Amino acid sequence: MTESNVAVTSMPEAAKARGRDVCARGYEAMPATLDTWQDAPHNRWTFAHVEEFVPSVPIRRGVSRELVGADQLAAFRRGVEDLDARLAATWSDAVVVVREGKIVGEWYAEGFKPSDRHLLMSVSKSVCGILIGALIDDGLIDVGRAVGDYIPELLGSAFGDATVQQVMDMTVAVEYDEEYTDLRSHVRAHDRIAGWRERLEGDAADTYEFLRSLRSAGPLGEVFQYCSANTDVLAWLIEAVTGRRFHEVLSERVWSRLGSEDDAIVTVDSSGFAFANGGISCTARDLARIGTLMLDEGVAAGGRVVSAEWVRETMAGGDPDAARGSAFQAIHPGGSYKNHWWSTGNERGNVYAVGIHGQYVWLDAPTSTAVVKFSSAPEPLGRTMNLDHARLFTELCQVLD
Amino acid sequence: MTESNVAVTSMPEAAKARGRDVCARGYEAMPATLDTWQDAPHNRWTFAHVEEFVPSVPIRRGVSRELVGADQLAAFRRGVEDLDARLAATWSDAVVVVREGKIVGEWYAEGFKPSDRHLLMSVSKSVCGILIGALIDDGLIDVGRAVGDYIPELLGSAFGDATVQQVMDMTVAVEYDEEYTDLRSHVRAHDRIAGWRERLEGDAADTYEFLRSLRSAGPLGEVFQYCSANTDVLAWLIEAVTGRRFHEVLSERVWSRLGSEDDAIVTVDSSGFAFANGGISCTARDLARIGTLMLDEGVAAGGRVVSAEWVRETMAGGDPDAARGSAFQAIHPGGSYKNHWWSTGNERGNVYAVGIHGQYVWLDAPTSTAVVKFSSAPEPLGRTMNLDHARLFTELCQVLD
Repeated sequence: MTESNVAVTSMPEAAKARGRDVCARGYEAMPATLDTWQDAPHNRWTFAHVEEFVPSVPIRRGVSRELVGADQLAAFRRGVEDLDARLAATWSDAVVVVREGKIVGEWYAEGFKPSDRHLLMSVSKSVCGILIGALIDDGLIDVGRAVGDYIPELLGSAFGDATVQQVMDMTVAVEYDEEYTDLRSHVRAHDRIAGWRERLEGDAADTYEFLRSLRSAGPLGEVFQYCSANTDVLAWLIEAVTGRRFHEVLSERVWSRLGSEDDAIVTVDSSGFAFANGGISCTARDLARIGTLMLDEGVAAGGRVVSAEWVRETMAGGDPDAARGSAFQAIHPGGSYKNHWWSTGNERGNVYAVGIHGQYVWLDAPTSTAVVKFSSAPEPLGRTMNLDHARLFTELCQVLD
Repeated sequence: MTESNVAVTSMPEAAKARGRDVCARGYEAMPATLDTWQDAPHNRWTFAHVEEFVPSVPIRRGVSRELVGADQLAAFRRGVEDLDARLAATWSDAVVVVREGKIVGEWYAEGFKPSDRHLLMSVSKSVCGILIGALIDDGLIDVGRAVGDYIPELLGSAFGDATVQQVMDMTVAVEYDEEYTDLRSHVRAHDRIAGWRERLEGDAADTYEFLRSLRSAGPLGEVFQYCSANTDVLAWLIEAVTGRRFHEVLSERVWSRLGSEDDAIVTVDSSGFAFANGGISCTARDLARIGTLMLDEGVAAGGRVVSAEWVRETMAGGDPDAARGSAFQAIHPGGSYKNHWWSTGNERGNVYAVGIHGQYVWLDAPTSTAVVKFSSAPEPLGRTMNLDHARLFTELCQVLD
């Protein structure tokens, strides 16, 4: 079986929708590849979607916001000790502090502009969590049902019998090797299949096939195991219940209601499947709007995105027992993971989204403040780094009181 | 010499600017690759530019214009016979007719929206021509000077001794095999090096290296030879004289002055070099603004883009003798190529931009009308197809009189 055969036979409905408008003209659901996208009948669709096949750069229509003052943190400098040194030490690219929906502080590193998008890494997961919440509200998803009920292709995998809630809380036991330096580890393969690295011989054709190949490593619902594959399962679920592609649903249900200033983007694999667990890029200001949406119990500038109930449940945190012994609890004792958001379990009830190399949305409900931070730290993870950020965000939220 | 060595030693200044903001922090001008972009120190820059490395999709912030009525051609149907049949027969995706700067007709195929971008193919060349015109106005480029004066790396190639004007008019004799079905032809290699197809062993590391490898095939300035490499030489020239990247200069000098509704994009190769000869995508409406700009002698909604002199020279056409015997003259006797625009030499003075598979900007100065058409024809080229389009555009321009 050749790789392209695998891709064709396994292609889920939503992936076929990649060439949806072509179907009516005899498109055979054969996915376009880098070597065929220019050919008919693919070109009917691909000519409007070349960035899904070839890397690209934006030719911006506006340059006005490029001139916005990059440093609006004066009010914070008075109360937050060594602020600039701490921003530098944590490889900051951008900081936005938003309080009761208004930007009260903003800072950009040289060369990074307010209109620049930045990769969210695993902050993408928390954005995906909100989208699942929105579809739960609509009755399209029942969190108590098994993933295999919605995606029969995942029956037999680690996720087939897991409930949607278990996937949201990452209490699915998955055979998934996180060893980043081992080329044969699952996490490296995941990266390559997503298009984030050069492919190796024998890699799964696409993320769908990769997810199907992941096996159970134990009982469900008992132990928190942080595994990026969970989020991709959710993205597949979103496609399955809407019949549309992840980025279209995210645009319709979230981005277009945020009052966002810019389009976001998400990377796609060779089948067009979005890298929902880490591949979203957006501006710092638009990400701050995600923070405000959570603080405002699901309501954004453009209307309600997700129910107040879902936000309250998320902000209340998950089961700390499930996360016992985790690296997260070494930083936040009593911490948990709920609906794809991290809960510190501390006295302020801080909940946050975090991505490797220093991406954050920090929520401080007592002061109605959200802090967004983009960074490009050399190391992906680090306990000290995480603690430094938590301390910095706490001070930024409290200093204005 | 390994491929990556070649890329490093040959990297022109503007390409290094890809990681410009990183240089200050010790960036060694080693370009990031698909396998290294996630690592420090690249990540300082790459995290804000992931779409240059990994294919992506937009998460649109707005959906309002999606609802705009797709068919506004009623006024044309009365006078243009079989309009709908002709649009279908020419695989149309979008048509915009703009007269004296106002949209007077607009049509979109099912599944293609006003806010969708479409690949321009070689219409990209004519956009690049305008940008060169703008830099000529500024005195940054002297069309009488040799390309090698600006880009010493091209000395010894087919382009080193050619004047900028000869490159603009494509009267450079280049050893460049246009045989599309031959995998070893230049045109196929060009495509692969641009990232539009899977690479083959032995391909040049990037477009810069590819352009340097092209050899002269005869005297300069005598015979029109349509060759896409000319446009990439112009893009390199733009980088050389501005010290910035093609898409940044295009944004600043053209796109931000057009009054455009959307960002455009352009595909990039592994070194970040834009595929200026065919890789731009934009909306039909924004491309219509390029047409209006030409009809208005260089002035767009946001101000002057290029001098009236340059536009007049372009609209007057080039040397038909240079194009004697060309496929273009088989369609338009008296036709020529001037400043990267096609001139029909007909009695109406029609000038146009055209890309394979049916992309067009047709200019009709007598009626101050521009017609934009996006298509996805199965065949890239065809004399009948070209004639059918010319006839259709002529009727669309005249029917409102």
